[in-house]
Amino acid sequence: MRKCLSSKSIRTGEFAEVDIDRFRRRGFPEVIYCPGKTKEQIRKIAAVLLKEKQPLLLTRLDKKVFSYLKKFYSGLRYNPRGRVAYYNPQTRSSSSRGKICLVCAGTSDLPVAEEAAATLEAMGERMVKFYDVGVAGVHRVLGKVNLLRQCSVVIVIAGMEGALASIVSGLVSCPVVAVPTSVGYGANFSGLAPLLTILNSCSPGIAVVNIDNGFGAAYFASLINRG
Amino acid sequence: MRKCLSSKSIRTGEFAEVDIDRFRRRGFPEVIYCPGKTKEQIRKIAAVLLKEKQPLLLTRLDKKVFSYLKKFYSGLRYNPRGRVAYYNPQTRSSSSRGKICLVCAGTSDLPVAEEAAATLEAMGERMVKFYDVGVAGVHRVLGKVNLLRQCSVVIVIAGMEGALASIVSGLVSCPVVAVPTSVGYGANFSGLAPLLTILNSCSPGIAVVNIDNGFGAAYFASLINRG
Amino acid sequence: MRKCLSSKSIRTGEFAEVDIDRFRRRGFPEVIYCPGKTKEQIRKIAAVLLKEKQPLLLTRLDKKVFSYLKKFYSGLRYNPRGRVAYYNPQTRSSSSRGKICLVCAGTSDLPVAEEAAATLEAMGERMVKFYDVGVAGVHRVLGKVNLLRQCSVVIVIAGMEGALASIVSGLVSCPVVAVPTSVGYGANFSGLAPLLTILNSCSPGIAVVNIDNGFGAAYFASLINRG
Amino acid sequence: MRKCLSSKSIRTGEFAEVDIDRFRRRGFPEVIYCPGKTKEQIRKIAAVLLKEKQPLLLTRLDKKVFSYLKKFYSGLRYNPRGRVAYYNPQTRSSSSRGKICLVCAGTSDLPVAEEAAATLEAMGERMVKFYDVGVAGVHRVLGKVNLLRQCSVVIVIAGMEGALASIVSGLVSCPVVAVPTSVGYGANFSGLAPLLTILNSCSPGIAVVNIDNGFGAAYFASLINRG
Amino acid sequence: MRKCLSSKSIRTGEFAEVDIDRFRRRGFPEVIYCPGKTKEQIRKIAAVLLKEKQPLLLTRLDKKVFSYLKKFYSGLRYNPRGRVAYYNPQTRSSSSRGKICLVCAGTSDLPVAEEAAATLEAMGERMVKFYDVGVAGVHRVLGKVNLLRQCSVVIVIAGMEGALASIVSGLVSCPVVAVPTSVGYGANFSGLAPLLTILNSCSPGIAVVNIDNGFGAAYFASLINRG
Amino acid sequence: MRKCLSSKSIRTGEFAEVDIDRFRRRGFPEVIYCPGKTKEQIRKIAAVLLKEKQPLLLTRLDKKVFSYLKKFYSGLRYNPRGRVAYYNPQTRSSSSRGKICLVCAGTSDLPVAEEAAATLEAMGERMVKFYDVGVAGVHRVLGKVNLLRQCSVVIVIAGMEGALASIVSGLVSCPVVAVPTSVGYGANFSGLAPLLTILNSCSPGIAVVNIDNGFGAAYFASLINRG
Amino acid sequence: MRKCLSSKSIRTGEFAEVDIDRFRRRGFPEVIYCPGKTKEQIRKIAAVLLKEKQPLLLTRLDKKVFSYLKKFYSGLRYNPRGRVAYYNPQTRSSSSRGKICLVCAGTSDLPVAEEAAATLEAMGERMVKFYDVGVAGVHRVLGKVNLLRQCSVVIVIAGMEGALASIVSGLVSCPVVAVPTSVGYGANFSGLAPLLTILNSCSPGIAVVNIDNGFGAAYFASLINRG
Amino acid sequence: MRKCLSSKSIRTGEFAEVDIDRFRRRGFPEVIYCPGKTKEQIRKIAAVLLKEKQPLLLTRLDKKVFSYLKKFYSGLRYNPRGRVAYYNPQTRSSSSRGKICLVCAGTSDLPVAEEAAATLEAMGERMVKFYDVGVAGVHRVLGKVNLLRQCSVVIVIAGMEGALASIVSGLVSCPVVAVPTSVGYGANFSGLAPLLTILNSCSPGIAVVNIDNGFGAAYFASLINRG
Repeated sequence: MRKCLSSKSIRTGEFAEVDIDRFRRRGFPEVIYCPGKTKEQIRKIAAVLLKEKQPLLLTRLDKKVFSYLKKFYSGLRYNPRGRVAYYNPQTRSSSSRGKICLVCAGTSDLPVAEEAAATLEAMGERMVKFYDVGVAGVHRVLGKVNLLRQCSVVIVIAGMEGALASIVSGLVSCPVVAVPTSVGYGANFSGLAPLLTILNSCSPGIAVVNIDNGFGAAYFASLINRG
Repeated sequence: MRKCLSSKSIRTGEFAEVDIDRFRRRGFPEVIYCPGKTKEQIRKIAAVLLKEKQPLLLTRLDKKVFSYLKKFYSGLRYNPRGRVAYYNPQTRSSSSRGKICLVCAGTSDLPVAEEAAATLEAMGERMVKFYDVGVAGVHRVLGKVNLLRQCSVVIVIAGMEGALASIVSGLVSCPVVAVPTSVGYGANFSGLAPLLTILNSCSPGIAVVNIDNGFGAAYFASLINRG
Repeated sequence: MRKCLSSKSIRTGEFAEVDIDRFRRRGFPEVIYCPGKTKEQIRKIAAVLLKEKQPLLLTRLDKKVFSYLKKFYSGLRYNPRGRVAYYNPQTRSSSSRGKICLVCAGTSDLPVAEEAAATLEAMGERMVKFYDVGVAGVHRVLGKVNLLRQCSVVIVIAGMEGALASIVSGLVSCPVVAVPTSVGYGANFSGLAPLLTILNSCSPGIAVVNIDNGFGAAYFASLINRG
Repeated sequence: MRKCLSSKSIRTGEFAEVDIDRFRRRGFPEVIYCPGKTKEQIRKIAAVLLKEKQPLLLTRLDKKVFSYLKKFYSGLRYNPRGRVAYYNPQTRSSSSRGKICLVCAGTSDLPVAEEAAATLEAMGERMVKFYDVGVAGVHRVLGKVNLLRQCSVVIVIAGMEGALASIVSGLVSCPVVAVPTSVGYGANFSGLAPLLTILNSCSPGIAVVNIDNGFGAAYFASLINRG
Repeated sequence: MRKCLSSKSIRTGEFAEVDIDRFRRRGFPEVIYCPGKTKEQIRKIAAVLLKEKQPLLLTRLDKKVFSYLKKFYSGLRYNPRGRVAYYNPQTRSSSSRGKICLVCAGTSDLPVAEEAAATLEAMGERMVKFYDVGVAGVHRVLGKVNLLRQCSVVIVIAGMEGALASIVSGLVSCPVVAVPTSVGYGANFSGLAPLLTILNSCSPGIAVVNIDNGFGAAYFASLINRG
Repeated sequence: MRKCLSSKSIRTGEFAEVDIDRFRRRGFPEVIYCPGKTKEQIRKIAAVLLKEKQPLLLTRLDKKVFSYLKKFYSGLRYNPRGRVAYYNPQTRSSSSRGKICLVCAGTSDLPVAEEAAATLEAMGERMVKFYDVGVAGVHRVLGKVNLLRQCSVVIVIAGMEGALASIVSGLVSCPVVAVPTSVGYGANFSGLAPLLTILNSCSPGIAVVNIDNGFGAAYFASLINRG
Repeated sequence: MRKCLSSKSIRTGEFAEVDIDRFRRRGFPEVIYCPGKTKEQIRKIAAVLLKEKQPLLLTRLDKKVFSYLKKFYSGLRYNPRGRVAYYNPQTRSSSSRGKICLVCAGTSDLPVAEEAAATLEAMGERMVKFYDVGVAGVHRVLGKVNLLRQCSVVIVIAGMEGALASIVSGLVSCPVVAVPTSVGYGANFSGLAPLLTILNSCSPGIAVVNIDNGFGAAYFASLINRG
Repeated sequence: MRKCLSSKSIRTGEFAEVDIDRFRRRGFPEVIYCPGKTKEQIRKIAAVLLKEKQPLLLTRLDKKVFSYLKKFYSGLRYNPRGRVAYYNPQTRSSSSRGKICLVCAGTSDLPVAEEAAATLEAMGERMVKFYDVGVAGVHRVLGKVNLLRQCSVVIVIAGMEGALASIVSGLVSCPVVAVPTSVGYGANFSGLAPLLTILNSCSPGIAVVNIDNGFGAAYFASLINRG
């Protein structure tokens, strides 16, 4: 319990208490989830982390707010499709670890896939991408089976009915992390359909994160990969 | 509208008005859905149809009630796994029509698959069965692709996440009728998960019937096959 | 499994892997679902299919994006109510097949009905349309019963409570494909109400596609009709 | 507000405070909903009402508990299908009021229909019954249209998809009170499907009561009929 | 069935089949539900009804579309809060029938209440209004109990938790028609909360219409009142 | 944080780690929720608490298991309607604190009300009970308004539509703690209906606990009363 | 019942019946919930309360409408983050009562927290604020345990998964009032996730108010604090 | 794709097609999910796997069926709390891999925890168990933080509100696999509440499996640990 006790946090204004101990405790610092925060609040939280020389990762960041932040932190990089900004000078992709594979069912799922990709990059992971290989033409993913089997974790991103995760899981021996997306219409119910699909998969070896949560899947996959 | 007007029905007791015109109008007579009906009510409705020399099909029929009916109608046949009874002296499988394929994801889905099988038999259809070929080992269904392509309709029965329907649909050019089943646990929510999966399939060419409704899928497939 | 193996796909950019084998395998090529795709992505996917001399079908296409595509592919036709574009030089309506009937409950359901109509046209089907014949005045659909009975498939499009599908199914001997629409208010819950109505129909011979999925119903009906 | 003030109630034990003023205020006394009450509690509440010379109506009453009560109140009558007991010496059917019509979609809906029938009888209403006239064979209810139009209220009882209420409402000029039932399976979701159907009816002139609430529909219809 | 057969409808364009027989059959003509219809479609449907000398009632009509219609039909009246337009030269309030009472829980529910009020006016009913008498201060509605008891039907309009319907029903002997509204926030779930409240009322004598359906409640109440 | 650190717990077997510090920290010890625990497990957890000389409270305890425990701890008292057992030698009702009022809508809600009553007793609170005063006859609860106003907290227990909480809250100036119950049928959905009712109350001053959670309401009310 | 009878209300226009007796009856006057009301309606309701010399509290008030009201009532104060306006000349924070603690999980939950803060201020309560102390770094809230234990009520505001309420409740002996917020994405379902979390808390001593209902939590906490 | 092609399966009866290639492909053979299968079916599927010299794992196995199987396969071991049987002669716990930690919120969650424990044992993993350390007394889990940090994966099993997963995840740097359980009552909705809690966790590094799916969590954790 001693470690718990020595945990530190820094208050900035009334609105935030930044958990600067998280980097030491968890291997990656607090990540800034941007919706509902003003650009000033985001900037001030970022300032605390940077002052502590910790990497920076901001998710669901509007392009406009990025431009505002860019003026203060010129090193900040931005993935516009994934709406993720990050700054991590020390990290370089570790070639000793395995690669993480990003498998994406359809072109419309790209924003979620790219949120994952940018997160993996910020966390220093190497990755392989197979986009638009949904089950309507199952030969597309079957044709990648040898490449899939060389990865240490597979992230499957799928909207509509989300069946791709079950297929992939049945072909590989590594863990599959699945992200249901809200892509679809009608009885998709904002991603509920693929979420239920994945939770109920008849193929064991899959775990799921929240709908559209590309960041969460990448973070979790990186924890696995750091082993 | 003349045909509508000439439709007939026969009242039996206070409890039923048997639509004896349905055989002429739709090509198959009224089917008796047994839950919530007493055995006497079932027997009396059956008596009306038999007197009109129409085939008999009873679904969700308990074995005990079947034994009771059997005493009155010795020709009645019973499929205990599908809980379906039927009597159809004139029907013989028509070799001029295509075969209907029953594809079933897991052994636990058998009661629904057999409800469909018994219905197809009562309606004079020829069938092929591929049971326990779910997507956790997708090579099982891929290995049947040539046989699947020789059928005129495919019925896919799947519980858990129901991904099998999308896979099959992507491989064939005939219509796929899908039946979600309530097999599963946790967030399966009594079949809601595979129902949503199938409705949201990224592979066009699938239509769905009610959860566990093996009868409905077979009836619909037979209508297609009669073309 | 040989056919499965020989399936081909063509990658275009990072974002898409076009399943060009689908035309051979399923009788109709990959259809482009447009939401969530940029206009450049749509154009490039279309280019792959056209280069392979395959028909083109684009659904949920905004008028503006159509105008953009029109500059590149002058032969492209557009149904603005159904928001569908298509290009299919070889197809002509096959008079040897039966007609497909589009029955629509209310004027407000027209966009879904027209998505179906444009899809049928792109797939070379002949059709009959009965719009605004909902059950509040059931004589309207009863008056069409003879015409309905001459079709080989009936597509019923209905929002609000979706009762029309049950009525139509009880009158004909061909398969009924039903599309629940999100037209309605209050406890319609974006189409959930008519979806449940249709799934639970007491009249067998109906199968359902996703809410507002006029395209899916037409595609499925065409598969039936090609028989 | 004076009338509100003079309202009376009688406490019996710790468990009940019988609203004996309701007969005067609303035209019918407190009705005893039996589930969750012990037989002794039911008997004591009944005793208070009988002492005040008020009619008695007990709903959802198990046959065993009825037998227990019968020993104390020999005049009590019981409808076993509707599980309703009642005692109302003064009431006789009023021939000056219109008849109330009970229209029931299927034989399996009978318990709900009979709960309504017994309630109407206890409230002194005359009734007509049309059972098993669901929309799968719509000519059955169309054939009753002249009889339906002679009634002052129609109660429609329907499970499965509940489409019958819309059809009936479109044919008559009197109010239609609809009762969704939990009869059905799969995506019926214990009566949610027909409840949503009826709430969303495209045919105005329908109001709905709770699922399986035959009593509530009959009570409401009687209030209308007392005019 | 003869009356059913003689029912008539008039087609206008591809988009509508106007049920002009409804006035004779149901006592009030087809009502035009405007969302999802173009202003031209609305005008043409109205033209058919007016040519048949039938009253006109349009619901959910935007002010702009009303202005457009007003140019063609100068007699059209508009209730902007209820977004209802109507034209009914022959109707005058019938003093031989009872009054209908509109009881509304909060000021925010007014648009729904006024949709009901305008409908009642178009149907020739006399009414009394008690707005903003919700249960947070129950003395407000208790103070109106004598006036409530003089009406022949009470319409209760309530959002948030919808408890007002139960209170009112417990005080009167006439039927209560309840309209849940989508007014509220959080777990109101667009009117689901008051809808469930009313369906489960412990006070019999209430029936419910769809969420926000002021028109439907008024139409139903008028059918009761015409007796 | 020192107090947090000094918290203690005692392990008993593999199955439990009893939080014996909770009595000091929260003013009342760990309460044993019995479902899913074997009678031996319950006995051993109780033994740890008793050894520490802490009061005992067991909820949802079957009568049979109580009889088993009674043999070991003869001082244990049992409320069979509320299925609660407790043992608290030191506690005596504190006359310096206010009374807590238990208001219960219907006789069928008694098991939940008695769970609350037994908990209050175990926690040394004085109480007043008003059972069966639901809103169908609102004069019953209005007649108690002076007594209600003398209490320091009111607990309202209501199933069906749960409207009683709003009424009571509008009459008093103390906090109202509401317990929705699963009593009801049809669209009650196991207590979801009254839960939503109470959450959406238009009358401020109400907070809610879980469905059927009489214990939780009493515990919370006692915390308020200890002030 | 005398007090109930003497309750007064004042009608302003057709749209409102202001419950001016509420101040006397409940200790705080009617609060104006602004959505769905026009600015004129809001002004007129405020005028009635001010004329009666009662405090004013307006929730969910747009800044524009505040500016409009400010012209008439210059003393009105506004909390723009909480969107609350109030005017209460007599109230001053009572130092004899305990402090109320506002604990907020994340920066994005601030609008709800500030609605609570402004309400507490309007009701004369003293408060302590701990914002951004969610469970991802649990040491932040553990570090405040001594301060938390000095308060008389704790209000916990939490979106996403809402786990903070359980943690806080386990550390203190005073009542915890929890507000789930709609902050989150994916399967947060507009606050449903944290609402269910809090209702099911394994830690007794928590009660919950509606999603995003900062006002309701503060009002309830103040009732507790007035004791 | 060659490996995909060479996959093998063995048919046993009509009911099963055993995927004997899965052991080679995925590192662990097909697992037998027992509900819905007859004891003969289970025995025959097991026979195929044993003949191939593959380990055996059977989940959700009733004790009676285990006794039946035991007669045929005397080496079979059974965990009665987790209802899991397994037989794996070759496996021994690998001391080169890290330990997997099982953290369980309450005693009532034990059956799910033991399903996980038995699965881990069958897969040759070493484990540590911390049962009954839920957040109502958060010091219990805080006291284990050093031990938690020595594990390579943590499985958190939690019913009720499921908050434990977030707490644990915030303390460790390894992946957390969470299992929501159906333990709870009221608005737990059969495990939906903790499922949503975990999906929405504000603490990254968690992935979730289906409700009550102890097997799935253990299988997934083992895949991670084999790394």
